[in-house]
Amino acid sequence: MTLILSNDDIEQVLEMNELVPVLEEAYIELVEGRGGNRRRSDIVTPTTLRDDGLYALKSMDGVIPKLGVGAVRLNSDILTFPTTGNEMRRVKVPAAPNNRYVGLVLLFSTHNGEPLMICPDGVMQRMRVGATNGIAAKYMAREDADTLAVLGSGWQAGAQVLAHAAVRDLKDVRVYSPNPDNRRAFAAEMSEALDLDVRTCETGEEACKGAQMISCATNAVMPVFFHDWLEPGMHIGTVRPGATEVEKAAWSDIELFALLDHDDNAEMIYTHGVLVGEDKVGSYGVEQDDWHNGLPSLPQIINGDREGRINDEQCSCFLNNLGMGYQFAATGYVVYNKAKELGLGTELPTDMFTETVHP
Amino acid sequence: MTLILSNDDIEQVLEMNELVPVLEEAYIELVEGRGGNRRRSDIVTPTTLRDDGLYALKSMDGVIPKLGVGAVRLNSDILTFPTTGNEMRRVKVPAAPNNRYVGLVLLFSTHNGEPLMICPDGVMQRMRVGATNGIAAKYMAREDADTLAVLGSGWQAGAQVLAHAAVRDLKDVRVYSPNPDNRRAFAAEMSEALDLDVRTCETGEEACKGAQMISCATNAVMPVFFHDWLEPGMHIGTVRPGATEVEKAAWSDIELFALLDHDDNAEMIYTHGVLVGEDKVGSYGVEQDDWHNGLPSLPQIINGDREGRINDEQCSCFLNNLGMGYQFAATGYVVYNKAKELGLGTELPTDMFTETVHP
Repeated sequence: MTLILSNDDIEQVLEMNELVPVLEEAYIELVEGRGGNRRRSDIVTPTTLRDDGLYALKSMDGVIPKLGVGAVRLNSDILTFPTTGNEMRRVKVPAAPNNRYVGLVLLFSTHNGEPLMICPDGVMQRMRVGATNGIAAKYMAREDADTLAVLGSGWQAGAQVLAHAAVRDLKDVRVYSPNPDNRRAFAAEMSEALDLDVRTCETGEEACKGAQMISCATNAVMPVFFHDWLEPGMHIGTVRPGATEVEKAAWSDIELFALLDHDDNAEMIYTHGVLVGEDKVGSYGVEQDDWHNGLPSLPQIINGDREGRINDEQCSCFLNNLGMGYQFAATGYVVYNKAKELGLGTELPTDMFTETVHP
Repeated sequence: MTLILSNDDIEQVLEMNELVPVLEEAYIELVEGRGGNRRRSDIVTPTTLRDDGLYALKSMDGVIPKLGVGAVRLNSDILTFPTTGNEMRRVKVPAAPNNRYVGLVLLFSTHNGEPLMICPDGVMQRMRVGATNGIAAKYMAREDADTLAVLGSGWQAGAQVLAHAAVRDLKDVRVYSPNPDNRRAFAAEMSEALDLDVRTCETGEEACKGAQMISCATNAVMPVFFHDWLEPGMHIGTVRPGATEVEKAAWSDIELFALLDHDDNAEMIYTHGVLVGEDKVGSYGVEQDDWHNGLPSLPQIINGDREGRINDEQCSCFLNNLGMGYQFAATGYVVYNKAKELGLGTELPTDMFTETVHP
């Protein structure tokens, strides 16, 4: 049988504390060449729905033989780009029947190829982004970091808090987002989840002051963390493609940068001209004559192939800039096994998604 | 509702004569920049099923705004590479429950993003390969071509015959494949489909002698059409990646080559070193100083951007070397509309494959 799960099912079974170690192990498989990732692709076209919208078909794949699974994650989106004040955001329109979004994960067995599970991507998406930033903080933030500032109070922000709590013993958590009601509701929710008094702040600067870990968790296309806010030893995590969240002026004072995927270096070079000389991105050891090594990836730091933080004064930044299908394989593995154990979801005949003809 | 179809449903609704014009129109959309294709990718890893097998997760996407659809096609395969005599073949193992293969097409609306249809890929795969070779013959074979030789009698071969019959008035069809029983059964089936006496031949050479159109439709990794068999005016179509079906010695006597996708030129250059000088691939007009133009694509020939056949003496060859997700969008469009019209398939709630959270 092929298991069909809803986001509600997935929320019941997907625990940050269980996802973090599995995803960490998966990253080691990847960097050591035993796992495979196919980079995200996007086809963007007009849509007949509205003139200011676009249709986008996005997909990404990954296979983790050690966990026995492969995954395809795909999104069929109507995109718009509204502006609020100075900020342009990318907003998906829930245009499918019953005002819903379209994002799917298909999980397959590497043992016999069978489709194990089909489910929406939303909860898994949030948790794998959060878990990845948590793992980045584990390896890149100061050992004694116990203060977290969260910029943003939306869907991604909660997973960021849980993930940082999974890797560090948090004593002080602050949240800033432009809407006071949103940040208050978020602080209340997180206070309960962490059993800790999560503070709201009136500015991003106030939230970041004295924080050892900063999590940028907005969908802003413009910077949300600024050069002036940088303090020695800070670790900053981001969740947006294009490395837009941290003001560029701050980059030269950040000594340790890491990307999610080593291949993202090409994009960073094209977009930002980084890696070509110390003056542009600080002294993290990449010289012009070996710039092809590029920024380290998080998996390389986990694995010890590249150096992580070397002292408590370094500023560090993790650019969680492009999702991997691979992450959905790891997350799907956790979800599938737990859901089977608990008997959650709807089972459909596997024959519905397989065939007798040699394709 | 999201429509779930089986290969049986699809066989009922997918007619070659209806697919050919839709696919031809889709190719024009593509070459004129209004359609989008994401090239096929493969992740290949070990499998625990068997030591001589591999697990492969393949995917490809395409969007055709004019038809209002996008598609993702994916395969989750156990691959083996057995040798029979001198031939090495790539054979997929039906290892999923009930000894089945795993290939899926997901069709989406570009209007509102919704998942319109989920179905197996097998029948569509065969028909889009056939239809594409038919369209190639329409534009590349001699106008008066009425003789077709088919090399192979398997799953793909039947669609090849139907597709050529859709674009030319066939008077003489011959089939060769190594197994006499297979070729006899195939000839009988095709004789009935075409209302024509399809002949079996004892060798490939006999089948090709005097034929104006040759269709290579095997899964052989080695050549099946040889230099000595080439006659003036012949058009050859292939269905395998890597351009392996036509013996390389014949290439320099083939004046008109076309690829499916203009981007395939990069692969052809890497693999075969073609396009770098006339001596290697004949006089089809690509000089060293404009080799970046590469071989024409079939869509470019349909559209008139590149020249097709210019006389009845030219030999031509269409390398249908790498499938496009785009083809599954066009084929899915035909299948979906016809199946809805006839009320075929199983409807599942679209909510099962959509979500309320912004992914």
